[in-house]
Amino acid sequence: MSPKALDHDSINENVKRAQYAVRGELYLRASELQKEGKKIIFTNVGNPQALGQRPLTFPRQVIALCQAPFLLDDPNVGLIFPADAIARAKHYLSLTSGAGLGAYSDSRGIPGVRKEVAEFIQRRDGYPTDPELIYLTDGASKGILVPVPQYPLYSAAISLYGGSFVPYYLEETANWGLDINNLRQSVAQARSKGITARAMVIINPGNPTGQCLSEANLKEIIRFCHQENLVLLGDEVYQQNIYQDERPFLSSRKVLMDMGQPISKELQLISFHTVSKGYWGECGQRGGYFEMTNIPPETVDEIYKVASISLSPNIAGQIFVGLMVSPPRPGDISYEGFVRESKGILESLRRRAQLMTDGFNSCRNVVCNFTEGAMYSFPQIRLPPKAIEAAKRAGKVPDVFYCLKLLEATGISTVPGSGFGQKEGVFHMRTTILPAEEEMPEIMGSFKKFNDEFMEQYDDHRGYSRM
Amino acid sequence: MSPKALDHDSINENVKRAQYAVRGELYLRASELQKEGKKIIFTNVGNPQALGQRPLTFPRQVIALCQAPFLLDDPNVGLIFPADAIARAKHYLSLTSGAGLGAYSDSRGIPGVRKEVAEFIQRRDGYPTDPELIYLTDGASKGILVPVPQYPLYSAAISLYGGSFVPYYLEETANWGLDINNLRQSVAQARSKGITARAMVIINPGNPTGQCLSEANLKEIIRFCHQENLVLLGDEVYQQNIYQDERPFLSSRKVLMDMGQPISKELQLISFHTVSKGYWGECGQRGGYFEMTNIPPETVDEIYKVASISLSPNIAGQIFVGLMVSPPRPGDISYEGFVRESKGILESLRRRAQLMTDGFNSCRNVVCNFTEGAMYSFPQIRLPPKAIEAAKRAGKVPDVFYCLKLLEATGISTVPGSGFGQKEGVFHMRTTILPAEEEMPEIMGSFKKFNDEFMEQYDDHRGYSRM
Repeated sequence: MSPKALDHDSINENVKRAQYAVRGELYLRASELQKEGKKIIFTNVGNPQALGQRPLTFPRQVIALCQAPFLLDDPNVGLIFPADAIARAKHYLSLTSGAGLGAYSDSRGIPGVRKEVAEFIQRRDGYPTDPELIYLTDGASKGILVPVPQYPLYSAAISLYGGSFVPYYLEETANWGLDINNLRQSVAQARSKGITARAMVIINPGNPTGQCLSEANLKEIIRFCHQENLVLLGDEVYQQNIYQDERPFLSSRKVLMDMGQPISKELQLISFHTVSKGYWGECGQRGGYFEMTNIPPETVDEIYKVASISLSPNIAGQIFVGLMVSPPRPGDISYEGFVRESKGILESLRRRAQLMTDGFNSCRNVVCNFTEGAMYSFPQIRLPPKAIEAAKRAGKVPDVFYCLKLLEATGISTVPGSGFGQKEGVFHMRTTILPAEEEMPEIMGSFKKFNDEFMEQYDDHRGYSRM
Repeated sequence: MSPKALDHDSINENVKRAQYAVRGELYLRASELQKEGKKIIFTNVGNPQALGQRPLTFPRQVIALCQAPFLLDDPNVGLIFPADAIARAKHYLSLTSGAGLGAYSDSRGIPGVRKEVAEFIQRRDGYPTDPELIYLTDGASKGILVPVPQYPLYSAAISLYGGSFVPYYLEETANWGLDINNLRQSVAQARSKGITARAMVIINPGNPTGQCLSEANLKEIIRFCHQENLVLLGDEVYQQNIYQDERPFLSSRKVLMDMGQPISKELQLISFHTVSKGYWGECGQRGGYFEMTNIPPETVDEIYKVASISLSPNIAGQIFVGLMVSPPRPGDISYEGFVRESKGILESLRRRAQLMTDGFNSCRNVVCNFTEGAMYSFPQIRLPPKAIEAAKRAGKVPDVFYCLKLLEATGISTVPGSGFGQKEGVFHMRTTILPAEEEMPEIMGSFKKFNDEFMEQYDDHRGYSRM
């Protein structure tokens, strides 16, 4: 009998080829260990509330009231909900024409929320934007030159759809900046293989690399995309997560608009944002949006059609987006509490970014750039030749070998750098900076103990010059 | 300059080819009319709460508490939430290991909720099932012989991914039953064109056709898929929506298991369910699951990998699934209210199904099967030749022409039968049975007035024999 339709031999090769390291071998092994009762510190996914971050109170109050609109008629509701949360819940329910959270919205999202997003972008960038070009999504994971190291969602999705992934390498020694000559070479190399590059992804602030791109660098990238006829995909989901004052977040759209015509009217740009990251960390709510700039109306219609096949993003996630882009204002009952909670989270993340960078840099054969933004640390692990040989004998990629040993020894679940891509012969791992601040010294201590013992075991004390 | 990456000429032909009638031309025109201030009755999408259905109280109480877990510590919480809702919220929060609704879950969904789904399936079908083979999803729209008339999500998604759609026709005169000979012909015809059929979709209860498949028919289908090496996709999202007592819902899985070995161990089956339909009607929450039967473990792993690219379904939707499969039990504080609300909705839907069928059958040149289940009515509109000619002159498919006229005249937004597929020369439209019961007489009156005037205008009183 021939193989059945869903036997492994029959399924699409693109599916088999797709790799997604964030939830790959390391994650599966960590889940097994957890089942066996071992304490696991999950630093593999940027999932703040799984690591103890408390949700912001005000948006949760608003959503709870939207979920249970009958509470709005309860005479006791004022005893447990503040008046501004009640008013805001009524506002969002009215934007759904009274249908509430239980009805599909338009596939592009609730028009009133899309309008709030447009107002937010205008406040942020100083340029008007059109709500018709803003689509709400279930998180930002739906959305192709791709930076390396990069977030492997991009490579996995490209592989799944049978596309070609054209890597460009970020410069570790230049704090993960983007070298435009390297970019040119990547596109030329792809072209020589018959691949037409169609899109370029930038992740700013960077995942896994944590850098904030400078205005000059963003301008170079925009000019490059314009010359090469590439659509620029701006993954800007970490725009609230900035841990230094020298280089604030600049949106690709603002930089593009600042450059003026003709380029500001020509470059095709799609920008992404989400409630999963930032100090909100509402990963499980699946709320996000993308904004289209200079995309022709017929293509916008096609994107609308494809979006409509999934009917609509979840409504609570849409309202979270609304709340993120229009948080409580000075004078509102909830304003001070909201600011206190938000600041508390951001300032603690800033301290953790520093603790982690310093911790890694104190370890033997480990060097690490400072996390300027986003929520990751991406230290380089200089693996000794003996460790690389041991990995080969075990049938593992060297950094996978290292990360698995780290997991078994300490319960720290990370993602090997090979899952993100790295220059040949250089090894990294990615951790989030999300473990609770009070646990950080213990975690970094436990890492240092493991790493230094590992290096002691495998290092024959020859020097390394490679960076 | 060559066209840019996202110019319409550059985008994937599969994208352009995908058609999705439920949100197509009719829906867009209805949205325009609504903006102009016209009252629109949206019967084009099965979206109960958009048409005034109130959400069930108990699940909304539980989710509101999960969204705002700090309320659980509030001394006044008992004034507005019943004790069993509080207990249940604590239960689901504990299933997330305390991370709550703000953290990604495992990409397959929360293990504890998947266990509750497995228990539900076992109670329903009488056979054990494995939670590891149940994946939670954002609604059931993610998930390929396809029934005609069919729900166009299938044709659109197949087209998008470059697949081939092999239609099989349901028998309108046999109350939309499935004729196995017709099915054989469809597969043979596809094969002669070089197309290998890989999967067959059944929608039971039917969308748009409203029939409940009999046990005998389901057995034939299962045997057919087994012989032809097809995976069976059982879209069973309307399993709670049954409006007659002769033919209760039978799951494909139960029928398969009843057939015994070897077929019960061999047929590859994937079954879908959701909180969007049934008496819950929680479309906007995006909660659902699929269950895999006889799918090899390596393929399950691939499906897990692909699911992990989207990180995780929204957590509130997952908890809605848990609540749907384990609703309040006799003795619980909320039990009687929950049963009263559920019964109220289902009994009203049953009356509306009857009102609508009778209403359509009282109209000139309209014939309509009774809606046995699901939430749609799919009357055949016998368009006179003069109407067909008028449609051609207007550049419209005849049933699109009819439905647009209906929309302009009455505000009733339907979907033309051509969006679902129909035998050549035969025309239908789909409406939901969801408008509020008290508005139904007026809506059907308004429809009858439009239809009978339309027929008066175009009908030259020649007879029709076609059905």
